[in-house]
Amino acid sequence: MDKLKRVAQQIFDEVRQATQDTQGVSRESFGYAETLALEIIEKWSTQLGLITYRDNLQNVWIRRPQDSGKAPGVVIGSHADSVPQGGNYDGLAGIVAGLLVLAYQQQKSITPPLPVRTLALRGEESAWYGKAYVGSLALLGKLDKNELGNSHRSLDKTLGQAMLECGIDISMIESARPAIDLESIRAYLELHIEQGPVMVARQWPIAAVTGIRGNIRHARIRCLGESGHSGAVPRWLRKDSVLAMAELLSRLDEHWRVLLQMGMDLVMTVGICTTRPETHAVSVIPGEVDFSFEVRSQDNQTMQQFYQLMQDECERISNSRGVKFVFDRKIETAPARMDETWTEKLCSAGSSILGTAMERIPSGAGHDAAVFANAGIPSAMLFVRNANGSHNPHEAMDLDDFMLGVRTLSEALTS
Amino acid sequence: MDKLKRVAQQIFDEVRQATQDTQGVSRESFGYAETLALEIIEKWSTQLGLITYRDNLQNVWIRRPQDSGKAPGVVIGSHADSVPQGGNYDGLAGIVAGLLVLAYQQQKSITPPLPVRTLALRGEESAWYGKAYVGSLALLGKLDKNELGNSHRSLDKTLGQAMLECGIDISMIESARPAIDLESIRAYLELHIEQGPVMVARQWPIAAVTGIRGNIRHARIRCLGESGHSGAVPRWLRKDSVLAMAELLSRLDEHWRVLLQMGMDLVMTVGICTTRPETHAVSVIPGEVDFSFEVRSQDNQTMQQFYQLMQDECERISNSRGVKFVFDRKIETAPARMDETWTEKLCSAGSSILGTAMERIPSGAGHDAAVFANAGIPSAMLFVRNANGSHNPHEAMDLDDFMLGVRTLSEALTS
Repeated sequence: MDKLKRVAQQIFDEVRQATQDTQGVSRESFGYAETLALEIIEKWSTQLGLITYRDNLQNVWIRRPQDSGKAPGVVIGSHADSVPQGGNYDGLAGIVAGLLVLAYQQQKSITPPLPVRTLALRGEESAWYGKAYVGSLALLGKLDKNELGNSHRSLDKTLGQAMLECGIDISMIESARPAIDLESIRAYLELHIEQGPVMVARQWPIAAVTGIRGNIRHARIRCLGESGHSGAVPRWLRKDSVLAMAELLSRLDEHWRVLLQMGMDLVMTVGICTTRPETHAVSVIPGEVDFSFEVRSQDNQTMQQFYQLMQDECERISNSRGVKFVFDRKIETAPARMDETWTEKLCSAGSSILGTAMERIPSGAGHDAAVFANAGIPSAMLFVRNANGSHNPHEAMDLDDFMLGVRTLSEALTS
Repeated sequence: MDKLKRVAQQIFDEVRQATQDTQGVSRESFGYAETLALEIIEKWSTQLGLITYRDNLQNVWIRRPQDSGKAPGVVIGSHADSVPQGGNYDGLAGIVAGLLVLAYQQQKSITPPLPVRTLALRGEESAWYGKAYVGSLALLGKLDKNELGNSHRSLDKTLGQAMLECGIDISMIESARPAIDLESIRAYLELHIEQGPVMVARQWPIAAVTGIRGNIRHARIRCLGESGHSGAVPRWLRKDSVLAMAELLSRLDEHWRVLLQMGMDLVMTVGICTTRPETHAVSVIPGEVDFSFEVRSQDNQTMQQFYQLMQDECERISNSRGVKFVFDRKIETAPARMDETWTEKLCSAGSSILGTAMERIPSGAGHDAAVFANAGIPSAMLFVRNANGSHNPHEAMDLDDFMLGVRTLSEALTS
């Protein structure tokens, strides 16, 4: 494994160098740098005695020479793209992990119960064309063909055009045909850096993912009250939109606290709030404040119920304060459950390697694993400790933690 | 009085017509339309058998022919200017009321215990040069000469230049000399439309003002937390600035409710709140939110204590939530107490005219009366019911309500 750790370091360095931007790395979905990263993966795979091929969607598959690729097997997958000026590990770490697992099995001539293949996907990040999981959705025949018309974040180019330039067979997406036989994937495993601060805070080098949180969002909820002279209108005649919003958020914050204590999985965020810049003033009672709302949970029912609670509180506050809440389009993403059997395999392998019980943690961010899980394929994820969050140049994963993840994956696949 | 009501209507109409803007009226402080309004007042005063003269600050004084103007007396005052595109009654109503009181006394040959003079002030509104009460402050020798350098809201002109163009003797302001003998003003009375909705809601045509609220303000308080991935950071590791602000405002709102029930005079307003537009997003925990704060009260101690309460809550929330509150410059305006004897005279006169006890109400907005009161001159104010607030073209004062105010003033001065 020590030799493989050096290989990992070399691959990470080589891809970073090939795809670096003025800050961090930029591996555009279905773009030049994403392809460059995949080519480096292909080169190393070959050097390590493995076979690579590309499917009709130009995703890269890696397998061992003795595996014909026909029999049902387990897929270790992750994505090669990054956000603009992102970090080197979000996505890439999972591909390198899969590559090392195959290299290790090859070197040690290990024959796992099911053949293992590594899948390097394209186009997971929504930052480039506004749509996440494009690669995995297309692979499973689940990408809405209308998404092909999505515009690039800054260039005059559509997703469909970028895919064509990559040599992708667009007709498969247009006819919603899977690019692989779904029956051939018995399980999907993904290693990923943690994008939150929990594992650093808890000192967990690796952890199993219990599920991937879904979310319900409103980009803009308008709270409409009545503006007025801040000195001349008494409290009983006010319809203060900001105090109404403050009451709503404080109550939701308290509900959240209680629900966590009852063991539910939940996060709530109001990332945007703003009074109207054209009319707001220190001495004017705010007649309107706009704010965003997001709730996430691994459990769809918890998420739906909290959303309903928000609506109920809005109605109650409307009545008591004489304000009105106006909602824009509700946007929903379903949560995904990880497969209990495979998660248990990961935990068992991890625990014996760590010499202590491996912890479990929900994934707040979305991953390709959610697409596979929601397509009915048993899926599981392993998080590796990472400081400073992701989607920024300051991602900081320790290679020793990463190698613990690689060993855990490898163990889980041979048990 | 019926004849005087028609006169009032004519004066209001004539001034409105002479100073109308595309919307409402614009009578710029120390500007052409303000002078025009004063000239109409002078013309009507003469027609009604009264004497007018201008002081060195070009304010208009009106008195009866038999009054030499030398003996100590009572001043009925108000201002001739308006905000840009404002209403016709804010300021002007008080001048017309004083004029009618003198005309009535003249017609009926009433000799009040003290001579009554009406004072039409300039430059009360801060909208033009950023400073309120310029006319009354200058009159009392209390205008900071540095204010003369204030720029016009849109033109390349200073307050000092505008005053010079009006024919004002700037040297008096520069040497902080009062333009009148303060000892000659035994009391200052002011009639004004209510700028809030209370009297309409309560169905009070007129009311005595108990005091003029002062205020303590911050234009910008920054609440600094820590931004992060909205899905990946659990509640216990968040430093959410918006939820911290929401807790602060909800607690202050509750304190406010309780203090009102304990009989204190208090209004609190957060007119501005906004997350950072450059970085905020639906799925990012807000690392910063900025908001304004204003507390007003007739009672300085109440105001100071509530301000302290706000500071204490900020500190408590800083500790519990790991956020930081950063305050800009604290801006303070002292409250002004109305004179109890004169207020009682107004109430007594008003009650006998209304046939029911005249109500009392605080003034949330500032008035020239506060300047006189804080200079040690016994001052009192009378509010007239007015719909739609002030500082907008939709001010709506009923002339019958106004005449009740005029009669009350007149009665109070002869008792």
